[in-house]
Order: sequence, then structure tokens, then C-alpha cells
Amino acid sequence: MFRTKRIVEFGDTDMAGIVHFAQFFNYMEAAEHAFLRSLGFSVVMTWEGVPIGVPRVAASCDYLRPVRFQDEIDITVSVKQLGRSSVTYRFEFAKGGEDVARGEITAVFCSFRPGEPMKSIEIPAAIRAKLERGQP
Amino acid sequence: MFRTKRIVEFGDTDMAGIVHFAQFFNYMEAAEHAFLRSLGFSVVMTWEGVPIGVPRVAASCDYLRPVRFQDEIDITVSVKQLGRSSVTYRFEFAKGGEDVARGEITAVFCSFRPGEPMKSIEIPAAIRAKLERGQP
Amino acid sequence: MFRTKRIVEFGDTDMAGIVHFAQFFNYMEAAEHAFLRSLGFSVVMTWEGVPIGVPRVAASCDYLRPVRFQDEIDITVSVKQLGRSSVTYRFEFAKGGEDVARGEITAVFCSFRPGEPMKSIEIPAAIRAKLERGQP
Amino acid sequence: MFRTKRIVEFGDTDMAGIVHFAQFFNYMEAAEHAFLRSLGFSVVMTWEGVPIGVPRVAASCDYLRPVRFQDEIDITVSVKQLGRSSVTYRFEFAKGGEDVARGEITAVFCSFRPGEPMKSIEIPAAIRAKLERGQP
Repeated sequence: MFRTKRIVEFGDTDMAGIVHFAQFFNYMEAAEHAFLRSLGFSVVMTWEGVPIGVPRVAASCDYLRPVRFQDEIDITVSVKQLGRSSVTYRFEFAKGGEDVARGEITAVFCSFRPGEPMKSIEIPAAIRAKLERGQP
Repeated sequence: MFRTKRIVEFGDTDMAGIVHFAQFFNYMEAAEHAFLRSLGFSVVMTWEGVPIGVPRVAASCDYLRPVRFQDEIDITVSVKQLGRSSVTYRFEFAKGGEDVARGEITAVFCSFRPGEPMKSIEIPAAIRAKLERGQP
Repeated sequence: MFRTKRIVEFGDTDMAGIVHFAQFFNYMEAAEHAFLRSLGFSVVMTWEGVPIGVPRVAASCDYLRPVRFQDEIDITVSVKQLGRSSVTYRFEFAKGGEDVARGEITAVFCSFRPGEPMKSIEIPAAIRAKLERGQP
Repeated sequence: MFRTKRIVEFGDTDMAGIVHFAQFFNYMEAAEHAFLRSLGFSVVMTWEGVPIGVPRVAASCDYLRPVRFQDEIDITVSVKQLGRSSVTYRFEFAKGGEDVARGEITAVFCSFRPGEPMKSIEIPAAIRAKLERGQP
């Protein structure tokens, strides 16, 4: 499990005075990438010379309580499921110890060979091991 | 069922060359609001003098095919479920007749009385009738 | 001069209840691209086999009046200046006949040859002619 | 002068592989607000019981070098000019010691009395003093 924090920016809010619901997906992605960096890799990587990316196949969020400008949010990231090619992350958002939202992103490891369509690949073993441990 | 279109803007894309996944939630909301306008109302409304809003409690999206800059997307909006206070919209995204994404948003009708916390209310009958018909 | 319209989306607003100031730059870019499409080309193009892009070197906006959710904005795009490699667009935003904002974007025509840094190029004569006329 | 840092998120980029130009205005605003918090106040404040906001009247940015995903940007904020009601901030963006962008935002202190249009006010003396010093 990986923990990170972020502060709500003014531009994240909407005219209802709370964080716009679509913004939580940006929060999740930023937390996912901070998690991946903590493991020593990035979403922009090459594996044995081939560019690899992780396009999303599903994303969802449940909103429990409103979040406002300048709130500090605690975000925990965990790996919920690892398939042959896919990874599902689970995100928990809290504010002052109270849950405010929960979400998931499922992404698929793909090769991006120039001039070819992206194609799903088996998650490389070294990456899978780190994702399973959730630690570098 | 309500149909609308939109064209993918440059700023909607990310460095993978496709529409950023979080952007689909903005597309859904814009389609939802176009649908509500087609029914003769807005998400910013008052009912018997009380301001009403529809904060989201859940949102999700499945991504089937990549969508790119200047693609024209067809979006259909339908009401999947109507509860006492909540409405679940279903969105289908297609490009050139091919499905590219599907999503849902669940929103709850709430009163926003000044100085009070937002509070869920029963969907007013006249609004419910229009949502059920999906027509003005 | 090219004219287009757009409607303000909910997610474009911020907690002050008006369109977030950064959003106007997305409005400008969308209008610029609609203008370019009206001339028969796109910002994603190749010229004599080489990919061409138009990264921005400057952007600015003056905000005259607040703009709100569901306002319909009229946007006019004109070419203010054409250099050897650069083009400066001028944008005028109005609502109900009243000016609400004015902005400019300066972009530079660049080649994006794979494996090389982007490099400014002379605006191809056929493109320059269309930009000067502001017509196809 | 106030210094802050931020890391470029994936969603900040566009299909050209660099940070989308409009995103720099969100970076500026986040830095401005971090600066204001460092001085002990916020953009959402009341002064002698009246809600005060600081809508923008002008914003501009010059782009010197491309910035990419996961780049760490150093941002410095300074007060360039203080008028009766307005403040102009200057922002310098650098990456690895090299300037990558420069921008400005001019904002006007306004009262937001419920039921009245927003109205510019003289910058309260205690706030002006802190802005002049750039220190708490």
C-alpha cells in the first residue's frame, strides 16, 4: 500500500463549491504514478527496447462526502488485482480521517511499436513482482 | 434517448496521442446537461423557491477503443434508473458507428438552502415524468 | 475573420461561480482549430511528408466580464500577424453582443521529424495564403 | 519572492508529448495560492465580515522550452505591481536551472456581498503590507 497527499486547487472546484467529480480521476492517476515512481518505474517506459504504455480500460469512482478548495486529501493506492496483462488499482480518499471517495482504475500493459497498433503484452515478471509486493 | 455529438479537442488528448481517460467524464456531463436542456430544464434550478443541485455519487467508464484529436463522437444518453432521489444516466460513445466507450453517472437531487448542508430530496414529480419519458 | 460559438459547461466553472480563467485558453485553442478546419487543414498535418506542429510561444487573455454556466459565447478568430514561421491569432469573446474577453495566441510552425528536436520552419506558401485571406 | 515546485502529471500533457499550454495557467494559480498560504491567508477569505475574492483581469504566458511528463518544475512567484485594488504576480518556471516559461496574472480584490454584483475594493492594508514584503 502506498500513501500520498494532495491539496485541492481552486481550478479543481466547480460552481457548486466542491471538487468537480471528473477531477478525482486526475487525482487517481497522479497517485498511481507517484506509486509507480516509488517502485522505481514510470508509466513511460521501455521494456527490452520496446515502448510500453498502460492505457485504461475501466475507471470508476464513488463519492461519499464533498471535498473543497484547500482541503488536504490523503490517498492510498493498492493493487486490487493483477491479470496476465492488466492491473486494477484501488484508491481510497480521506480528509481528516474521514473517507470522502473511493475509486478504481484498470489499465492494460501494451507495447507501442512505432507504426503498429498498440497491443497488450504479458506484464514483465520484474514489474509484476514489484506490483505484487507494492514495494520497490 | 437523447443524441448529441462532439469533436475531440487538442487539449483533450494526452502524450499517448489519445483522449485522456478522465476527459470522458467531462464529455458525459456535457451530454447529460444537453439532455436536460432538451427536456426544458437545467442542472442549476430552483424548485418551489429552493435551489436544487445534483451532486454525483458515482461515475464509471469502460474504454473500448482509442479516440483521437478531431474525431467526431456520437453520444447517446439514456436514463438507466430512477430512484426516489437519484438518477442513473447511461452514456454510449461511438465513432463512425463503432462503440468506443460506455459510462454511467449517478446523481442525487439535493436542496441547497443557504446556510444549511445539502440534503437529498425526492425528485419533483414534473421532473421525474420528463426523465422517465426522456422527452420534453 | 472566422466566427464560432460555444456553450459554457459546468466543469468549466469554479467555486466563484464563473468560468475559470485558464479555461479561456482552451476555448481559444478550440476556436483556432475550428478556424483551421474551415480553411481545409488541421494542426496535425504533414507538409511534403514531414509532420508539422504549431507549438505556442505566447498566450494571453484579458477578462472583461464574468461568464457563467450555460452562457453561449460568440468567438471571432482573426490573424493579427504573420511572421516567417509564426502566426498570432486574435480572439474576441462576446455574450449577448457584449464583449466579455479578448485574447491572443502566438504559435510557431515547426517540423517534428522523428528522432530530431522540433525545429521552426517557414510557413508553407499555400498555408500562408489561406491564413492571410482567412478563407479557404 | 516565493518558491515552490511541482511535478508534471500525465494528464497535463497533450498529443505533442509536452505540457499543454493552457495548463501553465493552472500551475501559476496553484503557485499563487501556495504563496498566499505562506503569507497566512487564502484567496477565499472574509474581511471585516465581507467575503472577498480576487477574479483575474489579465493572464499571460511566454513559453521558452518544452516541458514533459514527470519533469520537476521550479516556480518562483513575485509581486510585480500593487495597485489600489489590483495585484500583478510574476511567475518564473525553470527546469534543471533552465528557464522554461514566464507568466503573469493580474487579479482584482473584490467584495462578494450576497445578492450584489462583485465590486472592486481597496486592498486591505494588512494584506497589502504582506504582499509588499512577500513575507508573512
